Parts: sequence; C-alpha cells; structure tokens
Amino acid sequence: MSHPKYFGSDNQAPAHPAILEALNKANTGETTSYGDDPWTARAQDLFRTHFGPEARAFPVFNGTGANVLALSALLRPQDAVLCARDAHVDVDEGGAPERFGGFKLVPLETQQGKIAAGALAAQLGSVGDPHRVQPRAVTLSNATELGTVYEPGELARIAEAAHAQGMLLHVDGARICNAAVALDLPLAAITTQVGVDVLSFGGTKNGLVGAEAVVFLRAGLGEDFLYLRKQGMQLASKQRFLSAQLVALLEGDLWRENASHANRMAQRLAAAIAKTPGLEIAQPVQANSVFARIPKAAILALQERYRFLVWDERQGLVRWMCSWRTPAEDVDAFAADVRRALTPGSR
Amino acid sequence: MSHPKYFGSDNQAPAHPAILEALNKANTGETTSYGDDPWTARAQDLFRTHFGPEARAFPVFNGTGANVLALSALLRPQDAVLCARDAHVDVDEGGAPERFGGFKLVPLETQQGKIAAGALAAQLGSVGDPHRVQPRAVTLSNATELGTVYEPGELARIAEAAHAQGMLLHVDGARICNAAVALDLPLAAITTQVGVDVLSFGGTKNGLVGAEAVVFLRAGLGEDFLYLRKQGMQLASKQRFLSAQLVALLEGDLWRENASHANRMAQRLAAAIAKTPGLEIAQPVQANSVFARIPKAAILALQERYRFLVWDERQGLVRWMCSWRTPAEDVDAFAADVRRALTPGSR
Amino acid sequence: MSHPKYFGSDNQAPAHPAILEALNKANTGETTSYGDDPWTARAQDLFRTHFGPEARAFPVFNGTGANVLALSALLRPQDAVLCARDAHVDVDEGGAPERFGGFKLVPLETQQGKIAAGALAAQLGSVGDPHRVQPRAVTLSNATELGTVYEPGELARIAEAAHAQGMLLHVDGARICNAAVALDLPLAAITTQVGVDVLSFGGTKNGLVGAEAVVFLRAGLGEDFLYLRKQGMQLASKQRFLSAQLVALLEGDLWRENASHANRMAQRLAAAIAKTPGLEIAQPVQANSVFARIPKAAILALQERYRFLVWDERQGLVRWMCSWRTPAEDVDAFAADVRRALTPGSR
Amino acid sequence: MSHPKYFGSDNQAPAHPAILEALNKANTGETTSYGDDPWTARAQDLFRTHFGPEARAFPVFNGTGANVLALSALLRPQDAVLCARDAHVDVDEGGAPERFGGFKLVPLETQQGKIAAGALAAQLGSVGDPHRVQPRAVTLSNATELGTVYEPGELARIAEAAHAQGMLLHVDGARICNAAVALDLPLAAITTQVGVDVLSFGGTKNGLVGAEAVVFLRAGLGEDFLYLRKQGMQLASKQRFLSAQLVALLEGDLWRENASHANRMAQRLAAAIAKTPGLEIAQPVQANSVFARIPKAAILALQERYRFLVWDERQGLVRWMCSWRTPAEDVDAFAADVRRALTPGSR
Repeated sequence: MSHPKYFGSDNQAPAHPAILEALNKANTGETTSYGDDPWTARAQDLFRTHFGPEARAFPVFNGTGANVLALSALLRPQDAVLCARDAHVDVDEGGAPERFGGFKLVPLETQQGKIAAGALAAQLGSVGDPHRVQPRAVTLSNATELGTVYEPGELARIAEAAHAQGMLLHVDGARICNAAVALDLPLAAITTQVGVDVLSFGGTKNGLVGAEAVVFLRAGLGEDFLYLRKQGMQLASKQRFLSAQLVALLEGDLWRENASHANRMAQRLAAAIAKTPGLEIAQPVQANSVFARIPKAAILALQERYRFLVWDERQGLVRWMCSWRTPAEDVDAFAADVRRALTPGSR
Repeated sequence: MSHPKYFGSDNQAPAHPAILEALNKANTGETTSYGDDPWTARAQDLFRTHFGPEARAFPVFNGTGANVLALSALLRPQDAVLCARDAHVDVDEGGAPERFGGFKLVPLETQQGKIAAGALAAQLGSVGDPHRVQPRAVTLSNATELGTVYEPGELARIAEAAHAQGMLLHVDGARICNAAVALDLPLAAITTQVGVDVLSFGGTKNGLVGAEAVVFLRAGLGEDFLYLRKQGMQLASKQRFLSAQLVALLEGDLWRENASHANRMAQRLAAAIAKTPGLEIAQPVQANSVFARIPKAAILALQERYRFLVWDERQGLVRWMCSWRTPAEDVDAFAADVRRALTPGSR
Repeated sequence: MSHPKYFGSDNQAPAHPAILEALNKANTGETTSYGDDPWTARAQDLFRTHFGPEARAFPVFNGTGANVLALSALLRPQDAVLCARDAHVDVDEGGAPERFGGFKLVPLETQQGKIAAGALAAQLGSVGDPHRVQPRAVTLSNATELGTVYEPGELARIAEAAHAQGMLLHVDGARICNAAVALDLPLAAITTQVGVDVLSFGGTKNGLVGAEAVVFLRAGLGEDFLYLRKQGMQLASKQRFLSAQLVALLEGDLWRENASHANRMAQRLAAAIAKTPGLEIAQPVQANSVFARIPKAAILALQERYRFLVWDERQGLVRWMCSWRTPAEDVDAFAADVRRALTPGSR
Repeated sequence: MSHPKYFGSDNQAPAHPAILEALNKANTGETTSYGDDPWTARAQDLFRTHFGPEARAFPVFNGTGANVLALSALLRPQDAVLCARDAHVDVDEGGAPERFGGFKLVPLETQQGKIAAGALAAQLGSVGDPHRVQPRAVTLSNATELGTVYEPGELARIAEAAHAQGMLLHVDGARICNAAVALDLPLAAITTQVGVDVLSFGGTKNGLVGAEAVVFLRAGLGEDFLYLRKQGMQLASKQRFLSAQLVALLEGDLWRENASHANRMAQRLAAAIAKTPGLEIAQPVQANSVFARIPKAAILALQERYRFLVWDERQGLVRWMCSWRTPAEDVDAFAADVRRALTPGSR
C-alpha cells in the first residue's frame, strides 16, 4: 500500500507550521526549567483570558496524563468517577486511572455518546456506604468519542446535578476547540460559564506537536497539583516548549481556525456521502469525525488506500476523522472512493 | 536581577538548532500515531547501532517517566530497588516510584556519588523473607548526581554482583552521553557491554527539546513495556516528534559533540577556580558539573547575577552545571566573578 | 424495635460452637507465628483432601482480602478481570481492587446472576492493544450474589473458554459450601475438577468466627503469594487461630452440615411464601437466600421486626438470607409475617 | 529438637484465657455485621475512657493493617512519613506502605531505637518543593523495636516539633501497653496527653487471639476512615469478635496485667544473665525484650532448645522476648542455659 491517506485520527496529522515557528522562537537562551519561565507565564495569562480569571493551567505532555491527573486531583481514596459508557478514559487509557489513580470508573448510559444530567441519580445509592466507592466526579468528553457535541444547556444541567450531589465536573477536552467551534461559542461558554470545574485542554489533536493542559476553572481546586503533576510523571523540564505551543494556539485565532477546518472537512465528507445507498451516517456530524455504517466488503476495499478506524466490526461501524490539515481534495477523493466502494459491481 | 546567567542545570538550556531542524523536517504529512511511524523505526535502528542488536528502545517524555517505568518493568510486587543514597530517583521524583510503581527504594552508601559492588551484599539478608521486600534491581546514575562517572570496570563488577543475586541493573542515563564522552568510550561500552540490563537514555539534558528513551539492552526484558508505557501515561500520540529528536541526536555525532562541550566547559570552569583561596572543589569534575564549597557570603554575592543550585546549605556546597550551549566566555566571566566573590574585601 | 430477627446476611450469625471449641483447643502453649504452625499444616492437608493434591491454601482474614489478593496474584500490571455485572468484587469491595491491585474490572452480562462462557468473547477485542487493559482473569461467585448456583458443566465451559484465551478462572467462594451442598457434590467437583484455577474459600459466612483462604488449585500459580499476602495486610501473626477454624470446618462434615442447614432454611422459607399473592420469587432459590419482589408497604411492615436487605428499592426487590444457625421456627414465623404483610387490610 | 521454648516473639504466645472466654460469650445470637454491634460500641466507650473523649477507635485485623491505614489516613498523595531508621513499618511490612498507601518512608537516625525531636528538622528542606515528597507525618514505635520506651517528655517534644511543622504524630503501639506499664502510667499519658494524633493500638501481642485498633485521638482526623478500612481490606464482617477481645483487654486490668508480666519476665531474664562474662546487654531493658550480644557458638548452642531471633548475625546480636504467658521457671531455665552456653568448655 503506497501513499495511504489518513482519516484515522486527528493525531495522525503533523503540527501546524505556526507551532513549529513558535518552538523555533522559544529556542533561545537559557531559562528556568520546570515551568518558571516567560512562556508558561504567558500561557497562564491566555488561559485566564479564555477561561476566566480563576483559571489555573498546568501544561502536561499528553491526554492520558491530563485526564488521569485532573481526576486524581479531585478525589479522595474512596471516590469514584462517573463517565459515559465507552468513555476514552475508561476504555482507552490502558488502565492508567486504576493503576496511578487507584480509582474506579462507573459507566453511565449515553445517547449519541452523551450522558444526561438525569443519569447521575442512578449512581447515588452508594453515598455514605463504606462498602461502596463514593461518586465524586463526573467526566465527559466534549466533543464526544462519537463526534457529537454537548450544548451549553446540557452541560449546565449536568454540572448542576453534579454539584447538587457534592460532585465535580471534569471535561475531557481533547477536542474542546472542535466543540466550541461547532457551537460557534467561546471556550468559556462551554466550560467555566456552565459550571465545569476542571478541563483537560487538548492541543495535540488541534495542531500542536504535543501539549495539553489541566485547567482548574474555579479557585480552591487543584491546590496541590504542582506536586501531583510531578508525581504523575507529567512535569516537563524544558516546559517552555510545551507552553510556547499553547501560547501559539491560544493567543490568536489558531485554535479556532484549526478546529474549524477540521469540522468543515467532516461536514464536507458527510455531505458528499450521506445519500450513498448502503451507507448510513451513524451519528450526527457535529465535530470533526464521521461515523458511518457500511458493508464489510466496502471497508476492506477502502482500507487498501485509506487509514481509518473500524469502531465496531460486527456493526460495520467506521470512524473517519478530519484534522486541521486534511485537504478538501483528499476529502473529495475519499468521498468518491466511498461511493465507489458502495456501488454494486464497481470493483 | 537583569539577564542572569544560568549554571543551574543542563535543562535550562535551549535545544540544539539541529533538533529544531529535525522537528521541522518531521513535520510533513500524516503518519500513524503512537509510534508506528518511520521516525520511530529509524530511532530503533540507531539504538541498536549504539547499544547492540538486542536493544529495544521506547521513547518517553521525561526522565521521571523513563526511570519509574524502566524500574517498574523489572519488578514483581514484592520487589525493591537498591539505589545510591540521595539518588535522584529516590529524592527528586516526587514520590513517583512509590505512587505509580508501588515499590520501595533502599539506599546504599556511596563514595563520590558512586555505589560499589560490595554494597549490595548488605541488603541480601531479606531474600526469601515475606516480611521484607525483595531486592530485585539496582539502579545507579551515570554520570552520577555528583558529577562523577562510573568506569566500565566498576559497572561490570556491580552488574556481576547484581546478576549473581538474581538482580538486574538499571542505569539512569539522564547524562549517559556526558559519561561516555568523559571516558572517551562508545555508549555500549558503559552499558550493554558491561552488563547493564536497562537504560534510561537521556536526551533532554543533552540538547533536545524533550525526549528520553527506555532502552532494554537484553532480549527477554520489558516484553510488556508497550502496555506499561501507555499505563504510565508516557505514550506520545505524535510520537514522530519524540523519535525525530532522538534520531537527530544519535545518527551523527551530535550526542557526542553536545556532551563534550558541556564537559569541557565544566573542566574549564573548574580549572579557572580550583586554586581560589576559600574555595574547595568538592567532587572530581568528570562530567558537566562542578561541585564546590564556598562561604555563604560568596554564595549570596554570586546569586545576584547567576542561577545555580545550593546543594547543601549548611556545608556551603553548590553545584555549577554546564550545558551543550554554555559559552566559553560565560564560563570565564563566571569564574572571574567566583574568584572575586572569594577575595576578601572585594565587594 | 426490640429483638429483631436477622435475615440480612449469613455474616450476622454467630460462629458454630465447634469453632469456638476449636479455638479453645488451639489456645495452648507457644507456637511459631505467621503460619509455621501445626494447625496451618493440618489445614493445608485438608485443603488438599478436598481440592486435590496440587491445592495450596493461604489463610486470610476476610473475603475482601481473599478476592483482591487472589486476583492480584494472577495479573500483570496491564491485566483486567472480567466479572459478572454487579459482582460483589466490583460493587461491594469499596474500591479495594483498584486501590490495592490497580486493576480494572470489566462487567459481563448475566442471567440469574450467572455469566455464560459465551460472554467472554465480547471482551477479547482488546487483546494485544496497548491502549486497552488485557483480559487475564475471569471471576465469578458461586453461589452467586443472587443466590443461584453454577452447575459443573457451566463452570467447565467458562473455564475452557477462559483457558482457550490465556485467561485464568477465579471463583469467589464466600458461599462455595452452599453451592456444593446445593448440587450434592464434593467441593472439588465444582472447582478443581472443572478447571477453576484459584478459589477464595469462604468460611466466615459458613459458621466461622472469621477466616477465609486463598486456594491455588493448580501448580505453578501463586508462587509469590507468601509475599503478596503480607503486602496485602492479610498475614495473621497468630495464624493458628485462623487455621484451627478452617480445620474444624473441613476435617469432618461441619462445612456440609452448616451449609445444608442454611440452604434448607431458604428452601423452607421460599416454599412457605411462594404462592402468596403480591409476592414474586425473583430468582431460583438454590443456595441460602431468597430474592423476592414485594410492595413497598410490605417491606416497611416487615422492617419493623426483621433485618434484611432491600436489594433494589425501585423494584421492591428484597433479599432474605438464612445461615447455619437460622432456626426453623424463625423461618416459619417470618414466612407467616410475610404472608400477613401481603394480605390486604391486615395491618 | 523436641519441645522448644519460645523467646522469639510475644506473638508466639497463645491468647489469655479471658479472651477466649470473651469470644465464647460474644458467640450468641445474631447481630449486625461490619461493626454496628454492641461489642464494638462498648469497645468504643472503653477507648474513650482510656484515651480521652475525642478518641475514635476502629478495630482492624493486624498490625500491618493498623499502621498502613492509620498513616494513609493522614496523608495527601505527595506526603511522606518520617520514621526511625529500621522502623518495623519501614523494614518489616513487606512493602505494604508503598503498595497500598503509595507513600515514601524517610528514615531518621535513632539512639537506643528512639528518634529525637531535633531529628525532624533535617527533613524539612523539602517543604514546598514539588520535586520532593512532603513530610506530613512522623511515626514512632512505643515500646520501640529495640525494647526501649519513650518517656512522656520525649514524646511531647516530638509531637510539638511535628505540629510546629504541620506534621502529625502516629504511634505504632503494637506494644503500647508494655510501654505504659514500664512507665507506670495510664495509656493516655503517653498518647493523647502528650500530643500523639493517631495510635495503632496493639492487642494481639498482649494476649489477644488477634485484634488491633486504629485510634484517632483528636477530633477532625480520620473522618473517612470507615471507607479506608474497607478499601484496605481490614473490615471484619463479624466484627463483634474483634471488639469483644478489645473489650476484655480494656475493661478491667487485663491490658496492664498481661504487659506487666511480660515486662517483669524480661527484667528477670536480664537480671539473671547481665553479669555473665561474654554477654553484653545491648539495650536498656525497659519493656518485654532483652537484646544481648553473645558469641556465635553460644547462639548455636541455645538454638538447639530455644526459639529466638538473631537480630544482627554479624554482631552476634539476639533478641529474647517474653510474653504475657512466659513462665518464670522458663525464664530461669533459659537464663541458666544462657550462662552455661557462655561458660568456656561447658559443652
């Protein structure tokens, strides 16, 4: 297979040139290590600009680290985390939450990948029972693992339900920029302003070389996080190089432009294939991925030239994902190949 | 304090320009994420070239991750790690070994920062006693935390003593290139060839933006490390950007040039101050740091214009460290200021 | 509420007098602590008699310890445990598996509280994927949490399916004696002989003061368990007092008599209430508990004089459990009160 | 070797007959499991009587559990525990603190097995440094591992120094009764009244079948301990049988009588051998053990008929320990044999 095209994940993309330029610019002279540097200070300012004056951001290396440490920072030993069934943090972190954090994840039922405020109640029977873990945090992904997006009202209701029960709300924002852009809202409108307590801010999938941040959105949270980040092996010695990326993403419109492009390409792909006989768009296309059900033969045919994820083999469910860089012509060519793969006798 | 000069740590330095160039070159097109990419394959080849045909290298983000995961990969739950008293992994990893790995570190006495093969015997009384942790790995830093360097014979004797007791030898090689260069030996001569089992290969302090690697040097070790790296939150999605740095360091002489420069600057500094009255060079200067004892007043005077570490306040013991980038003129100016700070009545 | 009667759990019962007598007899003179004593040796012999020549038993304090340590002994860090949805080990151990063992539990669907061999396949998609925990052990409770009992054929099929995938089978045998007695089979016939690898043998609920045992049923398993038991805080210094209880239970017919009585009392209760209008027996009554659905008012009425568990408040599902000591007259009186509580206008 | 005599440990002794009697009496009728029973309530009262009105006691199974859980209850993830060098919790708990608690133990130098208030200062350099674990608790054993006893003034000074630095003081009281009796003081005088925050109260070595308690001595500590005890696998279902033992020990003078006898026997032994040529009493005999240095040949001769611990083989250091049950005649016979073993040409 020569020159495959990638619709597998937004982390298969390179970094945006502006990010490399930022790294180059940051690569000058000595600076204090471990975060006491001007780039980190500037990133901190920008997170406050985007997320409100109480926001405190801690750059980390990757999403696993961001999620596991953000949640660990909220929990006492007896506490558990409620999450969407099939949440990335539950099924795709290799057991890191249990191993490092020692905490249990309790899945909630979802619709279109989203949990609803009402689902929390079912897990409250354990409160006060020492035989049971105590629900203390709710985590959700926005955009979700299924490419859908929570609206502010949905988030506000979940936050309210969580807070009413003494729980905190964490958002896995590996694609938070895609979510904000999908809703045409600023980042705070789907986080701080609707009651989210802690955010894993995702940069890598939105055009960075590699940097995420744990962002505590309210005062009084994460006060020991400097220690936890170190203990969680997520403290960069040359932290300027993480922070410089975050600065480049957040100081202008790059966060928005990158995510917009990715979302538009997913829309373009969905529009181009939606009516193909034999293909069913399986989820509303709200962020940068298209979930579709197609016959097994079509999957095999497409895999000869394209890289993508078979989400559920038995269902013929596939995920096609676009990134900040996906060219429109690649989308169009792919859409054409999808249609062809679904045309009887075409091969 | 305007424009301080940094002799604090080699991680205060920027990255070597060749590393940024490598990042720029790697930033092209899509590639498979999580390590199945050409840069990682090339890095793997280079680690085999430097460390022998059985070497398998796993890029990780930082030294804490490299050390904690490398050791975890060697241990059963009941096992403990013998380390030098005041080893970085024991005192400077924020409790990560205990938190993530759940293992105990047992300090051994040192001379000039080095453990000796004979020191292992004292910890073997616990073998087979279920009330006690079982010594299973020895870890040492080369270059050491005190800027000294283990010679091949010393390492071979420790490895032999460890293996004779069913233990494995890990080297924290945050500065392994400085050690090799100090001895004018290839990397394998102080690792694979003298019986080291696993190495934390350090890149960040030797001129990278940020990348290290856990390198298993013999077949049969670390067979589950792909899982452990993920669980340990050290798997980069855009791994090409870690690997490309390691490739740039290892495919030519950059690893040697960077380390050589740093070592030479430390020698230059030591030579320039060694005979200053009131100053005592506290450790043999073998790698890229100078440990010295000076009066408290001199420390305070120097801190006005320089950044460095006070290693032991009561002793007046300071650490001055040079990097791949430290300019000779900065060393000379600093040496002059050191001499001045120690001249009675000079201030 | 004066003098309530207890149908809450078999651990509300006292110990059988023979157990106290055994403790009294064991309380003579000094003996070696931590398990190197004649009572432990004798218990070891008896476990071999009941479970086959390869069985090795390790007395522990309680069921949480038995389950968490037995499973931990089977797992590498990346491994997960498949369990019945709502398994005790998943929902009622206070998060001990995650905290101490660091492992994830993956629930399987059940029928009448039992998993089926076919359910394992659905969890095998993760095998070899470093982003996912690796299924390595299956655990089931026999008798189940719902008072049903796995038959030998069912167990053999699960064991076979597990072994075919490189997995091991653990049985939570908190009520293994009740299960064996229900089937009129020796203990080995539902454990060793059908392919179970490790058993948490339950004594406390079957008439002991307090003792359980982790029993490895095949050679080659649990070879480091002496260490793990100590590390898991389950090593008794005066171990003779745990072992003497296990000896008293297993050297004659006490294990069978106690469990038989408890099972018979549950049958007696079920028979006496089965046809009561408004009451539905919710699960087959195969061991020592009766699950029934009754109206909320009836629950409240019965709670005035009886202690029992409301298993699911919304469903009106209650659990009534009998023990080795439950008197037949208590059962009859309770059955009469149940019927009365369900008679319209009776109160 | 037939009929050896045991001077190995006080946990080689049987239980006092009054304890068995208490178990027999508690073995009547059903009661609520997991601690909501009259025996536990009565034990709670007695702990308040002995330790003051704020004391809250949680029965647990063994000393490992008591120590690891008591300390875990005091710590945040980044926190460490300062302990005496060679403290039982550091060297004899099989790595349980690191495995379950995830915390680091930092040894302090001792004299006669005792730490001094002044030793804490040396560990405070790490405060506020995220690369280092944070000292948060001090633990000491009273009586110590070397059979010496802290006096109230010593304890008060350590507590004061700890509290002044935001640290808490835990006492491993496996032999706290021996310590109190040695000083002829009530239990509170060496715990609550001198500033101890949490106590592992030891019962097993003082004549019980097996029961210890974690006792929080001040309000505001251990508020989540019900959860932690369950998660730490130390919650007994038939808790009445732990509590009944503690009640029997504490409601009259049994705690004092048992410990007094053990201490007196150690004094008797020490007095009988102190002047034997070739023998050196190595530590002040203040509680129930005698540490002595004797030639290797004498050790071997005594081991033919006696069980005891060789504490340090190279030094010829042995530990002889007496229990609540050690008969005076056994002590006298042993002392005679010790003298004989040290008489040249006697064998």
